[in-house]
Amino acid sequence: MPLAPLQKAVDDWISVNGGYWDEMSMLARLVEEVGELSREYNHQFGQKKKKSSEAESSIEDELGDLLFILICMANKQGIDLDEALGGVLKKYRIRDSTRWA
Amino acid sequence: MPLAPLQKAVDDWISVNGGYWDEMSMLARLVEEVGELSREYNHQFGQKKKKSSEAESSIEDELGDLLFILICMANKQGIDLDEALGGVLKKYRIRDSTRWA
Amino acid sequence: MPLAPLQKAVDDWISVNGGYWDEMSMLARLVEEVGELSREYNHQFGQKKKKSSEAESSIEDELGDLLFILICMANKQGIDLDEALGGVLKKYRIRDSTRWA
Amino acid sequence: MPLAPLQKAVDDWISVNGGYWDEMSMLARLVEEVGELSREYNHQFGQKKKKSSEAESSIEDELGDLLFILICMANKQGIDLDEALGGVLKKYRIRDSTRWA
Repeated sequence: MPLAPLQKAVDDWISVNGGYWDEMSMLARLVEEVGELSREYNHQFGQKKKKSSEAESSIEDELGDLLFILICMANKQGIDLDEALGGVLKKYRIRDSTRWA
Repeated sequence: MPLAPLQKAVDDWISVNGGYWDEMSMLARLVEEVGELSREYNHQFGQKKKKSSEAESSIEDELGDLLFILICMANKQGIDLDEALGGVLKKYRIRDSTRWA
Repeated sequence: MPLAPLQKAVDDWISVNGGYWDEMSMLARLVEEVGELSREYNHQFGQKKKKSSEAESSIEDELGDLLFILICMANKQGIDLDEALGGVLKKYRIRDSTRWA
Repeated sequence: MPLAPLQKAVDDWISVNGGYWDEMSMLARLVEEVGELSREYNHQFGQKKKKSSEAESSIEDELGDLLFILICMANKQGIDLDEALGGVLKKYRIRDSTRWA
């Protein structure tokens, strides 16, 4: 269960920092973080030039922010991310075997 | 054709400002703008407090930015937004009549 | 005011179909539509292969859906999209003149 | 390093299934997944009614899909997600101490 301790660490942090937001607010925060990641990808792999006034950032930072809010959302719903990811990998293996086996 | 002159105005502006980006870069820009709109919604209707260091913005500005990139994406693909919107309204009317008629 | 009659048409349609959702629900719908548009872009301009089981769609349809919810969001806040877009174009012209003039 | 084995497992799976997509395609896939998660949140916590024709889904599945593509994006860039998340937690602690200490 590699993700369980991370979920616990985030939960501990949140519990002493005001608790989780409601679901729709967490979703909006997720979308905000995806927007920032998207800006970074566009700068590095797309055609958008960076303005000199734009804050420094990095894909590592943005992926970290995204993972943090994703863990918050899972925690709020009582979802075990190890199981969630396990389900995805299982789904892909099955889909895969149907396609090429 | 209420949107046609707007599409033309944006096209004129783009043509003297370097041309359209490739499709994936425009998509990434759209996502960035949705992220900024999402932040504003969370501030005004959700639970996210605004940091004093965050740039002033408004929902009107963010919706304008979003509409601008949406028009760029339509222009790049040669899509008539009046027809696109007409198709949506037609779809909703049909779905509606099926549901309640 | 090219967009005003469109905003009015959408408002008329919404008023006889249950009224506007709350802001966070409309935002979530916008994000859902952006996701569908993103899937189409990935199919046509990116590396994602379409599964045969996936619903037929088109960029025109997705841009229409996106424009519809964008108009709904503007209407709910009493925002005039002609002014919003005008503000964007003005901002770009000013930014532009600063950069190259 | 709780996430390292997960990143490795995903990398192994990808390496026998065609390799990673280019960055902009992965970003588009991330946005697609966020859209599906957003639809689920709107169904469960917002005002959108589920259509009977819509595919069954769950927040757990959607969070799993999102985590999977997030790991793919990190892997492609050679980013250690344990470090990325550690950086976020450190940033929040510092921001926190500035605010309330």
